[in-house]
Amino acid sequence: MDLQDLPSHSKLYERVAASITAAIDSGALRPGDRIPSVRRLSQQHRVSVSTVLQAYAQLEAGGVLEARPQSGHYVRAPRALPEPRATRPPQETSPVSLSSLVASMYSTCGYAEATAVGFGAAYTPFSLLPTRQLRKLFAAAAREAEHGGAEYDAPPGHLPLRQQIARRSLEWGSALSPGDFIITYGATEALNLSLLAVARRGDTVAIESPTFFGILQMLEAHGLRALEIPTDPRDGMQLDVLETGLKRHRVAAVLAVTNFSNPLGSCMPDANKEKLVGMLARREIPLIEDDIFGDLHHGPTRPRVAKSFDRRGLVLLCGSFSKTLAHGYRVGWVAPGRFQDRVQLLKFSQTVATTTVPQRAIARFLEGGGYDRHLRTLRRSLAESMHRIAAGVAEHFPTGTRISQPRGGTVLWVELPRKVSALELYQRALAEGLSIAPGPIFSARQRLTNFIRLSTAQEWNGRVEAALVRLGQLADELA
Amino acid sequence: MDLQDLPSHSKLYERVAASITAAIDSGALRPGDRIPSVRRLSQQHRVSVSTVLQAYAQLEAGGVLEARPQSGHYVRAPRALPEPRATRPPQETSPVSLSSLVASMYSTCGYAEATAVGFGAAYTPFSLLPTRQLRKLFAAAAREAEHGGAEYDAPPGHLPLRQQIARRSLEWGSALSPGDFIITYGATEALNLSLLAVARRGDTVAIESPTFFGILQMLEAHGLRALEIPTDPRDGMQLDVLETGLKRHRVAAVLAVTNFSNPLGSCMPDANKEKLVGMLARREIPLIEDDIFGDLHHGPTRPRVAKSFDRRGLVLLCGSFSKTLAHGYRVGWVAPGRFQDRVQLLKFSQTVATTTVPQRAIARFLEGGGYDRHLRTLRRSLAESMHRIAAGVAEHFPTGTRISQPRGGTVLWVELPRKVSALELYQRALAEGLSIAPGPIFSARQRLTNFIRLSTAQEWNGRVEAALVRLGQLADELA
Repeated sequence: MDLQDLPSHSKLYERVAASITAAIDSGALRPGDRIPSVRRLSQQHRVSVSTVLQAYAQLEAGGVLEARPQSGHYVRAPRALPEPRATRPPQETSPVSLSSLVASMYSTCGYAEATAVGFGAAYTPFSLLPTRQLRKLFAAAAREAEHGGAEYDAPPGHLPLRQQIARRSLEWGSALSPGDFIITYGATEALNLSLLAVARRGDTVAIESPTFFGILQMLEAHGLRALEIPTDPRDGMQLDVLETGLKRHRVAAVLAVTNFSNPLGSCMPDANKEKLVGMLARREIPLIEDDIFGDLHHGPTRPRVAKSFDRRGLVLLCGSFSKTLAHGYRVGWVAPGRFQDRVQLLKFSQTVATTTVPQRAIARFLEGGGYDRHLRTLRRSLAESMHRIAAGVAEHFPTGTRISQPRGGTVLWVELPRKVSALELYQRALAEGLSIAPGPIFSARQRLTNFIRLSTAQEWNGRVEAALVRLGQLADELA
Repeated sequence: MDLQDLPSHSKLYERVAASITAAIDSGALRPGDRIPSVRRLSQQHRVSVSTVLQAYAQLEAGGVLEARPQSGHYVRAPRALPEPRATRPPQETSPVSLSSLVASMYSTCGYAEATAVGFGAAYTPFSLLPTRQLRKLFAAAAREAEHGGAEYDAPPGHLPLRQQIARRSLEWGSALSPGDFIITYGATEALNLSLLAVARRGDTVAIESPTFFGILQMLEAHGLRALEIPTDPRDGMQLDVLETGLKRHRVAAVLAVTNFSNPLGSCMPDANKEKLVGMLARREIPLIEDDIFGDLHHGPTRPRVAKSFDRRGLVLLCGSFSKTLAHGYRVGWVAPGRFQDRVQLLKFSQTVATTTVPQRAIARFLEGGGYDRHLRTLRRSLAESMHRIAAGVAEHFPTGTRISQPRGGTVLWVELPRKVSALELYQRALAEGLSIAPGPIFSARQRLTNFIRLSTAQEWNGRVEAALVRLGQLADELA
């Protein structure tokens, strides 16, 4: 692959890394192959040695290469564990009702204050966030706002922030304008407003199976029914099954996490995104697209959003800074397409406006130009910890375990031997100060009893490794 | 009335003022009567002359007394205009549908940036808010939070803030504990979560007539039907009509602004609050109580909340700092009674958590003890501007105009001669840079075509007076 083929906004080392990934994907390089030396590659691509070293470091962090001392870099053998099987939910609609047990459980695993090591919640660790800089910008924003932030930045929200998000949308393959966005309290409010805008109680929403429990809880809150579509661990929602579902059921909307879905980690290929958007456009069905993990790709290129194929204004694109900057700021957005006016009125009726100062602080951070640099570092750290945690599972979990191989995001989806009860494992682990997210909370029908989700949003260290060893033992006892 | 009868937490001058109000209410002092001289009253109550002068100033600001030069203080004649008539909405339930015209209109009158004088939105002017102090506390909170506010103060929210609100609940006649509260994005989110907790699409909610348009829009967003109960301009919801309504219809909840309702300004007497709570308890119907204006009483004593009579956990009490400190912070609360768990889960599903730093800044402000002092100044200013705006309406509006006489809050409800179209007046005023809120947006059926709401949340000055003169002329042309 020639470097010229890569998007021109990529860093040089990312383009070198991409050329190697492409060679592996094409079969030119195979698992176990030694890859060209640093010197040779630097001559070949006419880049500096340090650029190549950076590229190798990225690929190592992402688990693509491994360094062998005094020998060079090799293409890693594929992970020892197979991927989890796709779920096979019945293709009937169902109401969503997370029992209070399950609900109270995920509030525990969500806020893992009491736990020593938390694989439950998928929050980016503060050590990987630019909190020092944000803290200063936050205080500055409070000083600089005309009334100290006591005033509204009324919907659609702070214009300089919307301008910055619009600029970033070019990287998503869209070219949205500031007027296309409404600022919300995180992607969560964006999704809720979108649901309120396009569906009403009793309506059916097609979702991925498995699905982030927060989304299930939204459906429950608004009295919506779920049609769970089997989802491929790599390529996302199975579009042929979805198409059949659309024929058999009246579906008010499709809601999908197109890039690095939660908990599966699947990333829908561009062709599938385009097909999905077209399929829905023909039926005038809105797509609510949750792109909260899109910026956390391991590879060199940010995946596009399905919205980039939207010609009919039917895609409501939701995103957030919660995973990349600060979840406590509660700043996200929705680009609601043709539902813009309706969503803006709903925003007003549900929370009136988004808090002023955090919007300004984030706008200033983006204007300062440090966001891309921050993302590069963040992605490398998150890729590395995911790689190491996956390796730990492969090493320490019982025979028969399967694990997802996401190329981005912050979660791993683990299929345990059929006999293992994820709820039992959850309880036993919690008693020892270890949190995980059990499979049943990712299913409208509370199935998936032998699956767990592990958050990889943490810095790898000995405590995390010891926790994986212990989790593996507990799972073994239950197997 | 003896001073000892008054709540011991009142300031001395407030207790003197209350003794005069009580004498007027009892008929011992009548309109036009000269009240005892400052010196005499100071001797009689054994308080200083300056205390009595403070009491007189408060009563003057509230429109209870008037000073006549070289003569002394007199009980004001009742305002020249009669109160508006209670509405008589049909006692059938109806869906709520604010047409897009009306909806877009109130977004204009809500954010009156483009208007020279805004009687549309009921936001407290920044000049009356402690913005300088809050700005500092806000920056300090960002510095002091462990991760600069990037972290969650997960539901139920920041404990020190809940402790401060719980302390204040003693003044409302309740004695709630920090554990009774969940912090929300203003009273708006508190009301929405309460509605989601106790009602579902198609259910009927009994509301006041007229009702704040924001509440109507919430009902519309959640597909709830309205049963509009006639509301007395002084005493609030007509409980006999409500009782009949409860017999005839299946009502899922009652939602009422018990203290200084919006737009009517009515304040439900304690006996009515107790009766209402009892009436609903017998039927196991929840009461959603919106107390957002409770702290803005003109008289010496803060009115109680209906929640203070709640023995069954059926009252969901909603409040906010938006009217008294900073609407742009978006900090409010709900004390959901027996619906605590459900509301907390809904909070999680709708917006996950309330932004961290504003919660901390307000907690620090309350801990500093300046809130009561601030409220006293704020109340006096708001009472004075309401009094003056009411006088301006009496002077400049066409014959046949009626006006509410609230004893707190920040809005006046004006009934114009029947021929005047409030929508037409709204349009003509807006064309001249003057905003008002037209009656139809306060009605589920968009009636009330000859009513307008005037926000008195502003500092009185020549421009405001000139605007009233002009509004009066425009109304005259339409009459």
